[in-house]
Amino acid sequence: MTLPNMLQITPLLSACRAGTLTPTDIVREVAARVEAYAAKDPAVWISRVPMERLLARAAELEKLPADDLPLYGIPFAVKDNIDVAGLPTTAACPAFAYEPRESAEVIKRLEAAGAIVIGKTNLDQFATGLVGMRSPYGQPHCVFNPDYVSGGSSSGSAVAVAAGLVSFSLGTDTAGSGRVPAAFNNIVGLKPSRGVLSTYGLVPACESLDCISVFAGSAADAWEVEQVAGAPDARAPFSRTLSPRSLPLTTFRFAVLPEDERFFDGNEANAALYAQAIKRLEQLGGTPVELDFAPLKETAALLYSGPFVVERLAAIKDFYHSHRKDMDPTVGTILDGAANYTATDVFDGIYRQHALQQIAQRMWDDFDVMLLPTAPRIVTKQEVIEQPIAANSLLGAYTNFVNLLDMAACAVPAGFAPDGLPFGVTFVSPAFTDEDLASLAGRFHKALGEAIGAARIEKPEAPAGQAASSSSGRVLLAVVGAHLQGFPLHWQLEKENAVLRETTLTAPDYRLFALPDATPPKPGLVRERGFVGAGLEVEVYELDAAGFGRFVASVPQPMSIGRITLANGKEVCGFLCSEAVARSGTDITATGGWRSYMQKK
Amino acid sequence: MTLPNMLQITPLLSACRAGTLTPTDIVREVAARVEAYAAKDPAVWISRVPMERLLARAAELEKLPADDLPLYGIPFAVKDNIDVAGLPTTAACPAFAYEPRESAEVIKRLEAAGAIVIGKTNLDQFATGLVGMRSPYGQPHCVFNPDYVSGGSSSGSAVAVAAGLVSFSLGTDTAGSGRVPAAFNNIVGLKPSRGVLSTYGLVPACESLDCISVFAGSAADAWEVEQVAGAPDARAPFSRTLSPRSLPLTTFRFAVLPEDERFFDGNEANAALYAQAIKRLEQLGGTPVELDFAPLKETAALLYSGPFVVERLAAIKDFYHSHRKDMDPTVGTILDGAANYTATDVFDGIYRQHALQQIAQRMWDDFDVMLLPTAPRIVTKQEVIEQPIAANSLLGAYTNFVNLLDMAACAVPAGFAPDGLPFGVTFVSPAFTDEDLASLAGRFHKALGEAIGAARIEKPEAPAGQAASSSSGRVLLAVVGAHLQGFPLHWQLEKENAVLRETTLTAPDYRLFALPDATPPKPGLVRERGFVGAGLEVEVYELDAAGFGRFVASVPQPMSIGRITLANGKEVCGFLCSEAVARSGTDITATGGWRSYMQKK
Repeated sequence: MTLPNMLQITPLLSACRAGTLTPTDIVREVAARVEAYAAKDPAVWISRVPMERLLARAAELEKLPADDLPLYGIPFAVKDNIDVAGLPTTAACPAFAYEPRESAEVIKRLEAAGAIVIGKTNLDQFATGLVGMRSPYGQPHCVFNPDYVSGGSSSGSAVAVAAGLVSFSLGTDTAGSGRVPAAFNNIVGLKPSRGVLSTYGLVPACESLDCISVFAGSAADAWEVEQVAGAPDARAPFSRTLSPRSLPLTTFRFAVLPEDERFFDGNEANAALYAQAIKRLEQLGGTPVELDFAPLKETAALLYSGPFVVERLAAIKDFYHSHRKDMDPTVGTILDGAANYTATDVFDGIYRQHALQQIAQRMWDDFDVMLLPTAPRIVTKQEVIEQPIAANSLLGAYTNFVNLLDMAACAVPAGFAPDGLPFGVTFVSPAFTDEDLASLAGRFHKALGEAIGAARIEKPEAPAGQAASSSSGRVLLAVVGAHLQGFPLHWQLEKENAVLRETTLTAPDYRLFALPDATPPKPGLVRERGFVGAGLEVEVYELDAAGFGRFVASVPQPMSIGRITLANGKEVCGFLCSEAVARSGTDITATGGWRSYMQKK
Repeated sequence: MTLPNMLQITPLLSACRAGTLTPTDIVREVAARVEAYAAKDPAVWISRVPMERLLARAAELEKLPADDLPLYGIPFAVKDNIDVAGLPTTAACPAFAYEPRESAEVIKRLEAAGAIVIGKTNLDQFATGLVGMRSPYGQPHCVFNPDYVSGGSSSGSAVAVAAGLVSFSLGTDTAGSGRVPAAFNNIVGLKPSRGVLSTYGLVPACESLDCISVFAGSAADAWEVEQVAGAPDARAPFSRTLSPRSLPLTTFRFAVLPEDERFFDGNEANAALYAQAIKRLEQLGGTPVELDFAPLKETAALLYSGPFVVERLAAIKDFYHSHRKDMDPTVGTILDGAANYTATDVFDGIYRQHALQQIAQRMWDDFDVMLLPTAPRIVTKQEVIEQPIAANSLLGAYTNFVNLLDMAACAVPAGFAPDGLPFGVTFVSPAFTDEDLASLAGRFHKALGEAIGAARIEKPEAPAGQAASSSSGRVLLAVVGAHLQGFPLHWQLEKENAVLRETTLTAPDYRLFALPDATPPKPGLVRERGFVGAGLEVEVYELDAAGFGRFVASVPQPMSIGRITLANGKEVCGFLCSEAVARSGTDITATGGWRSYMQKK
């Protein structure tokens, strides 16, 4: 098969599994594209896996069963501050470079799932920057216009996906390095909750804050990669287990910047695109709520104008003291600033961070997710040359606070300005809501109807989490009566942040009875082997295990929760009823379900 | 009524509710005891609420309904680094003293529950110490022998409970200040999970680690106080919501020091008492497992011989720089040590802390709780005068690591040495297991059959959590068949750390059927209104909501989970079954339950 311009995961995987495409085909095509794109932009890669090693890896994969490997044959790029065995790690600083003894934990996990490392990508030195200009390996440019920056620090990784060279790439994100370049190149940048992806094998920027992040063509692809790459790792000091938490996805409240906080540094087109994004999210079920941006702005200032600069120095202290002259001048100047802080200043900074976390935590009482511009505007390379620190600071206006406050974020495309440059928005949500965050951001991206990356032609994949199957740690629950949308007990589902996954029918062998004397009125669902009806309408909700547990514990007699077989043969949890009680009521099976029965009644 | 020697909560509360005792009686008796004990030890209190204010508070309470207030009339003492409006806060440093504008959040909560503040107690200055000797307000002594230290830093708070002056007291615990003095005075010291009790209104020692702790006569009393005092508080930077986690309590694994790590500084009696404690815990269902103490020892060293000393300085930096000469000489010397650390050293210390947390986290795979000596041995006042730092360090050998690793701990009495001095052990468990920790420590204390405090005559109260009612956030689940202890599916309950709460019978109107063709063999429970049987045997387990949710989600057809009515009329969640399927099997109601049916079969 001919590969599509954008290498999204699902079509490649399907073709490999169908036998119409092989990993060898993929690595050959990728190598050709990488070669061709180097003529347009030679600064994307710092090192590449040699062709013979790519072919050997492809051959190795071809001995394995494609169906068992979730990323079989999928090509990816790796930011050059993450170790890959066999390639040097430079962190974009030649004097710092070393040959890693082993690959980072995330690389091992992705390779075990069948993915293929293509090479290591350029970055702002030591991941200190949001511009993509602070590297002796050249300055990648925006895929839409060579006069503009690619964004950074994960510059090469973003371009590699947007230019259709790889299916996904790994970046890192401390201040916004996994989101800003996504916005500038019209792709998705998923910044997982802190600690979910092991940082073992990563050159730290701010070790207590660093996240490995994912660039991809769709939020669904990015979440798939996060799922494969994420796992607790005792060797990473800040590793955490992803304990999934839900977001309400059908109707939800989202925070937006108040009018007078909408700073785009004079770019009116971006202001209009942000206003459009708000409208679009309203159409998807969201209610906008004004955000108090002041505490987030104060938090952001801690990162570069506060003691967290010391943390950047702590990461490479010995190298800095022996090789200050070998560093990028701007990065060196930033680290020089660490000398202004004492040991007690560091604790004071950490206390202020935690005090602001308490304030931010209460914000989630008023909304479920934030919708922010990813950056006020893109900048030209010339602007950065003239004002290397100010132009950089501009780009972090809406990203810097996220890791300090322990939140997850997903940057997605949000249209193009008349000058042909892309604009992006970022969804920000509480830690551990990664899956639902990607799902919501994916719905937004899909509704946009816009294309991805440089191609601007292909539609993104369907968002994650729409299938009937339950995802990790979640439970699917079918409701048939008073818990349906619009019925008196529906609030019990809302209280537990249950998300409607589908409206469908039961298998044919169920009967429904209107219970006598129930308040509020309720039906009872009973399975009768051998009976053949038309199936009964159910709504299937997804809840996390604790919410489901609390919900079940509140179910009164004569109801109970067991497994229900759906029309498609799958089993989900659902409401049952004492048969004796149910059969003492009226058989309403013929009405097709509680909703139509109550409407006709 | 005559008040008991030890003022445990339950008898006082019952008498107040029965009308045989009033808050006025309590404050008069407490004032008399405080006065009398001052002749034995004048160093317990730094300030006291005047008698007329105590009487006014009692009169105010007497207008309120005793039944609605969980700590109605209960007298307590407060360590003098916690703000109480109307009394100065000294932190045992007269030059530092100030008049707080409002009470600490925990004080407000305890007072709202009906408790009565009696006064502020002595401590090691700025809570820096474990001896109780570093105070210009005198040195409290062990309630059993005036030549020995009380332990610290919460010295006066521990003595006030042990001497029967108050029902409970608040201490604080960073390195062990809420546990060591409990051991030396034969009472319980519960150190909650970090962040559960607000530190708003506390003079910090190490702000990222400090916990307000509870001294009481029993673990049940201490847990009751924690429940009342604990709540999220946005004004406390490190505040966290207590998301309860279970410990297995019927059969469990507990970590013990390997023989060659049992350091008691030559005190053979304590070595023997520790070995006895292990035996006793085995009798309560525990299986001992050897602990690798090395990572815990390394963690402990971070606190006083590492950059966390800087955090003690950060807490009172301005005061230290202007009033160094006004400080206790030993405390001043410790803070002088902060000058040895740079800003990057602080981050290095925090990284090492987190790396050790990862190691410690994996330890819980091998056991459920740790059983450690609270301190190797008690020391004399003379020893501390001669070696003020070394004698102090000895006392923290088994306590220093706990807060750095984010664990909860409960110190309980463990008997007396032949010299009449008490020995104590500490249960250490993962964060947020506070309730089950107190329950297990309480069972141990009760099994000891020993008395509490100076009195050594009264038995502790029954431990918490043995009632049939479900406690906060937990669910009670009745099982009737393959999930009973010893049956094939019991592991599913163990996997979710379910705790057996009782074995009892259902209400009389249930029938039990042996299901046809079930693998493993299972019964089905069906309620039949109007039927009168003898009830059926059930085991009632307690699970947290998430564990319960996962459990329910795994229940296959034709089983379901609904409410079951027990013989005592209470409802709990429990196994039900499709009635059609159940009634197609054999009615085994007459056997009384699945266990007896399977035995007879």
